[in-house]
Amino acid sequence: MYYIGIDLGGTDIKCGVVDYDGNILYKASAPTPASDSPENIVFEMAQLVSRVIESSGVEKGDIQSIGIGSPGSCDSKNGVLLYANNINFDRVPLRTLMQQHIDLPVFIGNDANCAAWGEYCMMEKKCPNMVFITLGTGVGGGAVINGRLYEGFNGAAMEVGHITLMRSGKKCTCGRRGCYEAYASVSALKEMTLSYIDENPESPLGKKYKDCKSSVTGKTAFDAAREGDDGGAQIVSRWTGLVAEGLVDIINLLQPELLLIGGGISREGDFLLNPIKEYVSKYIYNCGNLPQTRIEIAAHQNDAGLIGAAFLGR
Amino acid sequence: MYYIGIDLGGTDIKCGVVDYDGNILYKASAPTPASDSPENIVFEMAQLVSRVIESSGVEKGDIQSIGIGSPGSCDSKNGVLLYANNINFDRVPLRTLMQQHIDLPVFIGNDANCAAWGEYCMMEKKCPNMVFITLGTGVGGGAVINGRLYEGFNGAAMEVGHITLMRSGKKCTCGRRGCYEAYASVSALKEMTLSYIDENPESPLGKKYKDCKSSVTGKTAFDAAREGDDGGAQIVSRWTGLVAEGLVDIINLLQPELLLIGGGISREGDFLLNPIKEYVSKYIYNCGNLPQTRIEIAAHQNDAGLIGAAFLGR
Repeated sequence: MYYIGIDLGGTDIKCGVVDYDGNILYKASAPTPASDSPENIVFEMAQLVSRVIESSGVEKGDIQSIGIGSPGSCDSKNGVLLYANNINFDRVPLRTLMQQHIDLPVFIGNDANCAAWGEYCMMEKKCPNMVFITLGTGVGGGAVINGRLYEGFNGAAMEVGHITLMRSGKKCTCGRRGCYEAYASVSALKEMTLSYIDENPESPLGKKYKDCKSSVTGKTAFDAAREGDDGGAQIVSRWTGLVAEGLVDIINLLQPELLLIGGGISREGDFLLNPIKEYVSKYIYNCGNLPQTRIEIAAHQNDAGLIGAAFLGR
Repeated sequence: MYYIGIDLGGTDIKCGVVDYDGNILYKASAPTPASDSPENIVFEMAQLVSRVIESSGVEKGDIQSIGIGSPGSCDSKNGVLLYANNINFDRVPLRTLMQQHIDLPVFIGNDANCAAWGEYCMMEKKCPNMVFITLGTGVGGGAVINGRLYEGFNGAAMEVGHITLMRSGKKCTCGRRGCYEAYASVSALKEMTLSYIDENPESPLGKKYKDCKSSVTGKTAFDAAREGDDGGAQIVSRWTGLVAEGLVDIINLLQPELLLIGGGISREGDFLLNPIKEYVSKYIYNCGNLPQTRIEIAAHQNDAGLIGAAFLGR
């Protein structure tokens, strides 16, 4: 049995054929038609699905279902994408539209939720209560509770980027101030690095980047810190503290057995993980030597969203 | 069939006989033995259970189980109270100790979780995803997810009082700074009222209370606001904003269908609820006219903990 997984992003549509064990037999991607109608985006997805099935060598009749991971909030029961601002979708009946092109069961889910689900499904030893967060332009997340993807009553749960860290603090894209995402995203890390360079032009980081600020990324501070640079270490310590502060909130609320961190920056591995673990174990609500949430780097990263989407139908 | 519910508090032990529909046939309470051994507290509970059964007129053989709601974190599977600092319990096998006195199945749960469970079980139209918070000396809470009490993998979930509202802000009893509880508890409301009185001794509130500050309670500002006092209205507006800020976080994470507010202060009714609802609907993560969490005053209040504890065994 095989499953189609689609990871619908603001810039690219990724699509793959996945087997029951989560192996991706074949995958391909296409640019997301920009500011286009839902019908056109769905048509593009359907084309991609056909191409991917053909190239995978899998018989069409052996494909069980199509799963679509999309930004925004989903009514997964009815297959309706309720809202996604970055691709301008508002109450789009994705399932119905997709089935006009391909006669297969169609499942939909939020992209970060699909990534959480993919990580969960691919675990050797399952943690029935786990949270996944992804650090990128924003901060996204998903949760598996009692072995099931948790989407809240309206499909919009686990907007982890939009819990408060600093009331009346930095303006967030959501309209509120002080959201976690405004401090703990990789965009915020990059901003912190740029501010440091502006304020310390004679520091090693300042000297290296003041004339080529456009080459600064989230990785810049980590790279400098690894090379023993004080400024880099300061930035990393401050940012990981902010990331950890929000994780303490999530753990104090949900106490998942496992908390996975994904997103490109998680390639920093223990250099990211160790200060986070230290901060969390210091500030977690003291409940008397209870077993504590394990914090790990997500294992499947870029493919988790695609696999999780495919496994919505498994 | 009847069930014994015990609400074990820092000052009192409440105990009642509850029928299948949640009617309390008889209840009584006794002071919690102060700074005493777990064995003595359990002995006191067992005595109370016997007295309550006798007075209720229910046959011992018709009692199904005993449920204990306790402060702190519980290993509900093994009947062990893992940790409760205000009654100095550390890994106490409540079930085993209780069964040395009374031969009945014993269930245990965190007190705020039991209150959440009681409110859920007593609802006419069940909301399988709901959150309950209680505003008092601290801020506690519990969640029902997919129709089951959610306790996290270690029994310590839903410490809603210990999510951050203001990083590096007010010191919290848990050791962290800026927790929700430090701003949104009724203790914090009382502090705000006292500060206002100190800073505005010639205001109506200042004149009334500057010489009898010990009579100030959480209700003081609400009473003044109801009578049209500006100072009272300011305090109520500030405090309800803080309460609502944390609720936005909880909703952005869990998107429960229903969020219930309990604790003595919730008797303020719409005077408490309306500004909270307004704030929440303004600052909630914008997900495009999705159905939104209903926010209501908890219906069963003081008895919810006892009924929820009893219903752990239903």
